[in-house]
Amino acid sequence: MEQDDTMLGRARVSDTPELTAYYGELEALDAGALWTVANDIEPWYPQPKSVPVLWRYEELRPLVHKALGMVKADDAGRRVVMLVNPGRKDVSAAAGLLYTGLQIMGPGEAMTAHRHQAAALRFVHEGTGAWTVVDGQKLKVGPRDFAITPNGTWHEHGNDGEDGPVIWQDGLDIPLVNALDAGFYEVHPELHQTPGKVVNSSVLQYAANLLPYGSERWSRPYSPLLAYPWEPTYEALLGLAEASEGSPYDGIIAEYTNPVTGGSVMPTMGAHMQLLRPGQATRAHRHTGSVIYTAAKGHGVSVIAGQRFAWRQGDIFCVPSWAWHEHHNLDQSEDACLFSFNDFPVMRSLGFHREEAYPDHDGHQPMPAATGAAATGAAATGAAAVPTATA
Amino acid sequence: MEQDDTMLGRARVSDTPELTAYYGELEALDAGALWTVANDIEPWYPQPKSVPVLWRYEELRPLVHKALGMVKADDAGRRVVMLVNPGRKDVSAAAGLLYTGLQIMGPGEAMTAHRHQAAALRFVHEGTGAWTVVDGQKLKVGPRDFAITPNGTWHEHGNDGEDGPVIWQDGLDIPLVNALDAGFYEVHPELHQTPGKVVNSSVLQYAANLLPYGSERWSRPYSPLLAYPWEPTYEALLGLAEASEGSPYDGIIAEYTNPVTGGSVMPTMGAHMQLLRPGQATRAHRHTGSVIYTAAKGHGVSVIAGQRFAWRQGDIFCVPSWAWHEHHNLDQSEDACLFSFNDFPVMRSLGFHREEAYPDHDGHQPMPAATGAAATGAAATGAAAVPTATA
Amino acid sequence: MEQDDTMLGRARVSDTPELTAYYGELEALDAGALWTVANDIEPWYPQPKSVPVLWRYEELRPLVHKALGMVKADDAGRRVVMLVNPGRKDVSAAAGLLYTGLQIMGPGEAMTAHRHQAAALRFVHEGTGAWTVVDGQKLKVGPRDFAITPNGTWHEHGNDGEDGPVIWQDGLDIPLVNALDAGFYEVHPELHQTPGKVVNSSVLQYAANLLPYGSERWSRPYSPLLAYPWEPTYEALLGLAEASEGSPYDGIIAEYTNPVTGGSVMPTMGAHMQLLRPGQATRAHRHTGSVIYTAAKGHGVSVIAGQRFAWRQGDIFCVPSWAWHEHHNLDQSEDACLFSFNDFPVMRSLGFHREEAYPDHDGHQPMPAATGAAATGAAATGAAAVPTATA
Amino acid sequence: MEQDDTMLGRARVSDTPELTAYYGELEALDAGALWTVANDIEPWYPQPKSVPVLWRYEELRPLVHKALGMVKADDAGRRVVMLVNPGRKDVSAAAGLLYTGLQIMGPGEAMTAHRHQAAALRFVHEGTGAWTVVDGQKLKVGPRDFAITPNGTWHEHGNDGEDGPVIWQDGLDIPLVNALDAGFYEVHPELHQTPGKVVNSSVLQYAANLLPYGSERWSRPYSPLLAYPWEPTYEALLGLAEASEGSPYDGIIAEYTNPVTGGSVMPTMGAHMQLLRPGQATRAHRHTGSVIYTAAKGHGVSVIAGQRFAWRQGDIFCVPSWAWHEHHNLDQSEDACLFSFNDFPVMRSLGFHREEAYPDHDGHQPMPAATGAAATGAAATGAAAVPTATA
Repeated sequence: MEQDDTMLGRARVSDTPELTAYYGELEALDAGALWTVANDIEPWYPQPKSVPVLWRYEELRPLVHKALGMVKADDAGRRVVMLVNPGRKDVSAAAGLLYTGLQIMGPGEAMTAHRHQAAALRFVHEGTGAWTVVDGQKLKVGPRDFAITPNGTWHEHGNDGEDGPVIWQDGLDIPLVNALDAGFYEVHPELHQTPGKVVNSSVLQYAANLLPYGSERWSRPYSPLLAYPWEPTYEALLGLAEASEGSPYDGIIAEYTNPVTGGSVMPTMGAHMQLLRPGQATRAHRHTGSVIYTAAKGHGVSVIAGQRFAWRQGDIFCVPSWAWHEHHNLDQSEDACLFSFNDFPVMRSLGFHREEAYPDHDGHQPMPAATGAAATGAAATGAAAVPTATA
Repeated sequence: MEQDDTMLGRARVSDTPELTAYYGELEALDAGALWTVANDIEPWYPQPKSVPVLWRYEELRPLVHKALGMVKADDAGRRVVMLVNPGRKDVSAAAGLLYTGLQIMGPGEAMTAHRHQAAALRFVHEGTGAWTVVDGQKLKVGPRDFAITPNGTWHEHGNDGEDGPVIWQDGLDIPLVNALDAGFYEVHPELHQTPGKVVNSSVLQYAANLLPYGSERWSRPYSPLLAYPWEPTYEALLGLAEASEGSPYDGIIAEYTNPVTGGSVMPTMGAHMQLLRPGQATRAHRHTGSVIYTAAKGHGVSVIAGQRFAWRQGDIFCVPSWAWHEHHNLDQSEDACLFSFNDFPVMRSLGFHREEAYPDHDGHQPMPAATGAAATGAAATGAAAVPTATA
Repeated sequence: MEQDDTMLGRARVSDTPELTAYYGELEALDAGALWTVANDIEPWYPQPKSVPVLWRYEELRPLVHKALGMVKADDAGRRVVMLVNPGRKDVSAAAGLLYTGLQIMGPGEAMTAHRHQAAALRFVHEGTGAWTVVDGQKLKVGPRDFAITPNGTWHEHGNDGEDGPVIWQDGLDIPLVNALDAGFYEVHPELHQTPGKVVNSSVLQYAANLLPYGSERWSRPYSPLLAYPWEPTYEALLGLAEASEGSPYDGIIAEYTNPVTGGSVMPTMGAHMQLLRPGQATRAHRHTGSVIYTAAKGHGVSVIAGQRFAWRQGDIFCVPSWAWHEHHNLDQSEDACLFSFNDFPVMRSLGFHREEAYPDHDGHQPMPAATGAAATGAAATGAAAVPTATA
Repeated sequence: MEQDDTMLGRARVSDTPELTAYYGELEALDAGALWTVANDIEPWYPQPKSVPVLWRYEELRPLVHKALGMVKADDAGRRVVMLVNPGRKDVSAAAGLLYTGLQIMGPGEAMTAHRHQAAALRFVHEGTGAWTVVDGQKLKVGPRDFAITPNGTWHEHGNDGEDGPVIWQDGLDIPLVNALDAGFYEVHPELHQTPGKVVNSSVLQYAANLLPYGSERWSRPYSPLLAYPWEPTYEALLGLAEASEGSPYDGIIAEYTNPVTGGSVMPTMGAHMQLLRPGQATRAHRHTGSVIYTAAKGHGVSVIAGQRFAWRQGDIFCVPSWAWHEHHNLDQSEDACLFSFNDFPVMRSLGFHREEAYPDHDGHQPMPAATGAAATGAAATGAAAVPTATA
């Protein structure tokens, strides 16, 4: 279908002196003429300001460590290097309305407790002493573990290890909360919670497709299971690889789930772990919704909106809404794993989910020769890079 | 609150010759006077015809084995000794509208495939060669494994072991289906299905609180996970016991769940596994809904409607609707486990769920001296045995 | 598909002296051999004990009036002539697990208040003074109005008119409640409720596809709207007839709905009003679930399981589960209306809904010459009358 | 609870030369230090950029009429004067992420058909000839009627009246769709739809709390009822006023509802009509979520974030998220009605709904003497105007 702003059905009014004067009259009344902005605010397809970006862990890590010495945890609130999309500096987003950052905590450190409307999730990069207390439940998390801090829960973190700092990645929906004018923040009246005695209590309670006594009374909109350790997750993916072909676009992929509902872990953000078989190259697709990926294991390449991004363990990269993307495990003998989180629950709740497969070249975008670190503007939408998409 | 059929608000019309004649006139028109039956059909509290029964595995087992030689599998359809409540012979129910039986399959035997409106579940008692194919998925199940054959799925079973027969317990909602005039039955047009290559495919796909790609398209009203092996189930209960006090009435109890919804495995029957700590004696409660229990591990005593039932591994017993019941693990050093299935999903869907705690003696029914094998009539309701309940 | 009990896949074990002895051994243990009952309890298709019946209002009315003089309201509880299916006398059902009856209240009479697990609905046949108080809300209902008394609500009724008795039809799920051993009954501690001042409060609050303030907090499993007056119902059907072809099986049909959920009025029973255009003859279909119809307007004929039932205003008839049925408005100039209630919500909740169109003769069953008043046995299933259905 | 950015638990790092250099290093890697923005992006309570604004219909109307002569409908796409919040010019929003505008169509005009990801709604201000065709259904709408054009439906509009132009108000979620990078737009391949023969088909089909045959198959996330005429809406409010006290904050208020689900008309926007009794002054509350109000009948005053806005029929005003607001019908003998639409469905889906009552002065904000036309900055949040709210 033709998509041309000069066609009947689009706004195509040219400026005249009379119209310019008229626009001034409107502006004086806090009004305007729709046709002056219609084509911009009703685009043919999504026009994200976010661009594909890859952040290299080996570049970020020294700067994250540097923060440890430069600011006190108590002064920073949280000592976090946030990753900022060049197109979204105004809202501190890594992509779309999603925020991410790398938080460091030194041995023995503990943050104060707070809660906020924004939901948070964690993915541990390194270090063994990390703990978090969420609504009174103490959780210990290690490398590649995934944990959540749902909307409105009291939380505080720390590192009780002795073998060095912990670095974990935070993911939050702060830009979404702010876009909807819904942000609240509270410092815990006693600055710290009193945790229950059993560590990882919810991990012990939710397992093996069984729901414990009392689950039928759980009525909050998020998962009562607050942490998802790496080992059983990886084992589950290996089992899934035996039993299933997986997704043509993502390989062996599974969503971390709220065991009480089978839904996403939180109402605003979902998270997945995926496994690419040795040498596997998935097909490209695109969808509404933004995704932040973290290479959890192995090394490979992802092609996003026609740009090539090589990643290895620890690297973080983003796929803006409606950008074509595909993944390639470059190792011929080892599998590779990608952790990711997204705003798909929002897309689905609001009826905004849309997806399509890349139609040409057996599902693969033309592979460019060079590696892009970040691109801006129209290229990111995939439209320019993949002209067939809108023809 | 007083419950007396002579009080205002209850039917209390005495027969007279005129009324008797009138009732005859009504009957001739396929009609009747409500007040002649009102107090019976609107009882103060449930009046199940089912009575508490315990079936001893050591008594049943020889007769189940005997069936192996007496009838051919092909002639029997399925070679099953069903357990029949003395009060429900008319509908072949073990309790309420639930059917159960012990099915035996000799080494090398295979049944033909069929499907029906009734839903089925299996709990394996003994033997290692049991398999079932459900809608094309081959499952291997061993002792204490739980598996389902939902409403409308093609299924066939067999035993490919070499070390003797398999005995598993079937649980079905046949009496419910018939009470609602909703039964259908079909023999598979080719008598056998062609199973997929991967054995236990759904067990591999649903694990660790992750949902695989494609789960969002599952729209059937039952669990896509068709088998729940014993080992992870038991481990989950041990973990739960570390993290939780459990239920005062059931100890450490968890429901086998549909991972896609967090609901019961099927819309008409739910199933639980529970663990009683060494020496644990739970408090009594009663609820609407019927339950069939199987002792999966250990030995103990359950008091049901004031009667004492001693059980050991393999024994099966039932708790009729609204009967008081409590469980006691008699072993002071080992835990005991009870598998059970029920019609609670029906109670909840229809708004019939009701539950109450036994109010006296710290929650324990007066313990009678003798062991009852089966009781009939009013005693089963708990009303006679526990007069305070209705006073 | 062949349906023959001698085929492989069905039970076909002949009695032998050894088996007879074996069955005796089983019975002594409260057990039995499944294959002796399997074909009966797992039929090829539903085998309801209910038969199609039509109850003529002109025959029942004099007997209903007679009750007014013969028993006091206070002694009867409720003065009701119940309609009893010849195949379901054991459970006082009119069809399936549904109860219905005609209740009469003389001028100035008032019943005492009670509540029960069973849900009730009312359809007014005649008289203008009927009132009911449901959980404190006073409702006035007139001819052809539909009202509900959901599961667990306190209720009491009366007639404050001066122009004679009121006769309304009760519909309840008493047999269902009893089949599930879930019945409870309570007399109001003060025998009467204190109603709020506004009559028909919920009728005033739920109208025009608007939900009033507070509706978002309604969490009960039934409609907060308790009465559905005839006039707007009939107008809605006339509007629907302008805009829609309606159902091929039911003409212009609409379900009374819970405005807060769009679902059925109660979790165990639904109700419809349908309009047949002048001369309209619908096609036949059959479905699981039982239906009780009341001719609300006009006259016609329904063919049920091959039997012809002529009805006029006030008559009541039933369609058992899985019986073929079709309706014919015999008036060439006036529309006809049928009120009906059913157990479809149960069928849907439990996954038992199944439906099929009559495949032959343009969708019409062979029309027999004579009118049946009641039929028994196999004929009612439609199988014998319509042999093509099961071939 | 104290809310002070210098307290422990907030970011309070002062700039130093070392830190400034560090921030530069971070920026070079598309990164930043969270503590430099944390207090801004995690505010104590919502900080909308939107301010309360009232747009006077008598001021806008001449300019809307002027557009009729200045631009051709075919060139404008739609001839709309949009209302732009001074704080949201960047996204063309009237408040929050909601867009609104006044559209004019001359006699005989018809627009071309298109569809988009954004959802739309209409509220008619004046003129009798307005029609719209939504997914093939032709609707005629008159003054004060409410209609919807859900997400993804083909639609086109026109005016077939002879008595002058039509002016209606559009409400869309365009800014929300863009914030989530989810916008799509298509021109109808034939420029016009072929409407069905029955006008207002869905209005005829959904009435009187009845659901027509086929409704059970409706699976789209929006209402099948596409127009809500004024007369039955007003009558419903009058009935509601008889039966209910209504809301302390909104008087007699009801939500236009999807009859199939009882939910909001669309997944991203809800709409209400409310009636203020003669002289009624409601109490103040505040909530997350933005609201656009249109005075549908009568005249009054609303106090929003401490500013007084006087309105009369046709005027439009907005309440930003978390701003205190209350309404006052200034007429002592006539009721007043406010139409409004909002993003509450988004707030609820995402778990962002929060509400609180104004705690002081019997629920009334201090009434300022002067009328504000528009205010900017902190005043709009209500925090400055109502210091007790955050103390």
